[in-house]
Amino acid sequence: MAYAVAEGVKEQGGEADICRVNAVDIDTVSAYDGFAFGCPTHCGTMSVKMNEFINTRLHKRFWGKLYGKVGVAFTSSGGLGGGNEVVLMSLLSVILNFGMITFGIPDYVSRDVTLHYGSVSIKEPDVDALAACRLLGRRLVEYCDIMKRGLDGSDSK
Amino acid sequence: MAYAVAEGVKEQGGEADICRVNAVDIDTVSAYDGFAFGCPTHCGTMSVKMNEFINTRLHKRFWGKLYGKVGVAFTSSGGLGGGNEVVLMSLLSVILNFGMITFGIPDYVSRDVTLHYGSVSIKEPDVDALAACRLLGRRLVEYCDIMKRGLDGSDSK
Amino acid sequence: MAYAVAEGVKEQGGEADICRVNAVDIDTVSAYDGFAFGCPTHCGTMSVKMNEFINTRLHKRFWGKLYGKVGVAFTSSGGLGGGNEVVLMSLLSVILNFGMITFGIPDYVSRDVTLHYGSVSIKEPDVDALAACRLLGRRLVEYCDIMKRGLDGSDSK
Amino acid sequence: MAYAVAEGVKEQGGEADICRVNAVDIDTVSAYDGFAFGCPTHCGTMSVKMNEFINTRLHKRFWGKLYGKVGVAFTSSGGLGGGNEVVLMSLLSVILNFGMITFGIPDYVSRDVTLHYGSVSIKEPDVDALAACRLLGRRLVEYCDIMKRGLDGSDSK
Repeated sequence: MAYAVAEGVKEQGGEADICRVNAVDIDTVSAYDGFAFGCPTHCGTMSVKMNEFINTRLHKRFWGKLYGKVGVAFTSSGGLGGGNEVVLMSLLSVILNFGMITFGIPDYVSRDVTLHYGSVSIKEPDVDALAACRLLGRRLVEYCDIMKRGLDGSDSK
Repeated sequence: MAYAVAEGVKEQGGEADICRVNAVDIDTVSAYDGFAFGCPTHCGTMSVKMNEFINTRLHKRFWGKLYGKVGVAFTSSGGLGGGNEVVLMSLLSVILNFGMITFGIPDYVSRDVTLHYGSVSIKEPDVDALAACRLLGRRLVEYCDIMKRGLDGSDSK
Repeated sequence: MAYAVAEGVKEQGGEADICRVNAVDIDTVSAYDGFAFGCPTHCGTMSVKMNEFINTRLHKRFWGKLYGKVGVAFTSSGGLGGGNEVVLMSLLSVILNFGMITFGIPDYVSRDVTLHYGSVSIKEPDVDALAACRLLGRRLVEYCDIMKRGLDGSDSK
Repeated sequence: MAYAVAEGVKEQGGEADICRVNAVDIDTVSAYDGFAFGCPTHCGTMSVKMNEFINTRLHKRFWGKLYGKVGVAFTSSGGLGGGNEVVLMSLLSVILNFGMITFGIPDYVSRDVTLHYGSVSIKEPDVDALAACRLLGRRLVEYCDIMKRGLDGSDSK
């Protein structure tokens, strides 16, 4: 899914780095305009590694300092009804906690698949889930571009 | 989906009445041991009719008076990632608000479909979604039976 | 709370109209840059009137057409632990469903009051809750301004 | 808060052991009738230690094996509006994922404090938050007793 999000970013003219949370160079975080947080759904919670990254390394350096950055989320669960939206909402809660903006996507990528709160997959991502991830990546770039233009010349904060 | 939940109830030896929320005879509510609340997912919220039933007629008569009753939830959404779990959690929030008990179901009804917070369907329910609804109905009876046996002889509340 | 949000909007140089949901002139919606959705917490759900407004009148005219608009939420509940954040998350779910952007506020307005997902009040708003509402209004204008500048010259969508 | 929950358990005639998640003797888990999961609210998520306990040690041994057990949740956050209900819902999601039952409490412990989804505290628990914790403990015992009586003689599962 992360690769598909990154493809979407590039389709929209952006650049993307994919990084496992335990390999993030924390010094580079502020250089990014946006972030797509993705992890598996475990017992209806985000993964321990993601939680640890957020609550230790990211929190220590960037709590309240990600103003104007754009955040989105993606996850996979073992089954439909198995917690994927619960985890998306939990990741969005984190994104909002850090003071980032986020956005919803009303579009459908197929008759039966949408990504109102981010993209989801049931087990391995199929064609539709990958299309949702790419759309998520494209929109992420769009909103990052809007925010950058909007923040230039802004004296806010 | 409601019919499949009712089938499950009967498979487990229970009796079930299916009722549209705007046709509920509110005087009969206290006679039931459990409830399966189901509605479509609209913009990531429960349906207006369900919300209205809960916050007007059910609230007026039964706020804090459904102690020991068992509640579960089911919903359908237009798409995967379209809000079905968000609505299940909202229905569970109501169930808890009224003081009922609820329970999760870790079981999978097929390789890709589960019902950890209640049963969901993407558009019209397929074979798996119907199986999830039947399992929800069977478990609802099981827990209603346990609660009834447990409450008999209890002097609590 | 709505009046305090509007005050905050004006403090930041914006204009605000306060409108009960059942009195909204739906033709005017597209003229606004942002929206603060507020309602009481009833049984852990948004109010029926808010739900009805969103799922009927707003949905009919503006589903998927609020791209680039900014949405935030506020609510009051009868008690701490009585559902105010549950309702904020439900309102944010709606905001995302319509394709709007939203944002979190890490700031505290007092030692014990913050507004990470929007502003909340326990019963009647006290001084801190009103300060949270005003901050919500100010930030809403800030983000509306950023989005407007960012969308100008944008060919996206 | 944990000590107050345990006091409530004892007031209702139950026994309680308080244990930090990283000190839980996993072999003893099945001997308990119910569990009160409590942790601080960190960035709108449960603590990393709680998440790790749930997703590693508890999951490994007890996934789908806590049928009939009763689970409740409590948490503290730095501020009102700072994620305490978001974390309660996340802990309830875990409780449901493991197949436990849970219940809501409509009662108010004071004019302004309730515990519809579990008990919450803003920073250090005050008198009301401690009263909410004790009520949570008492109800936990009540429901554990009901479930035990109900499960005795039951051939289900």
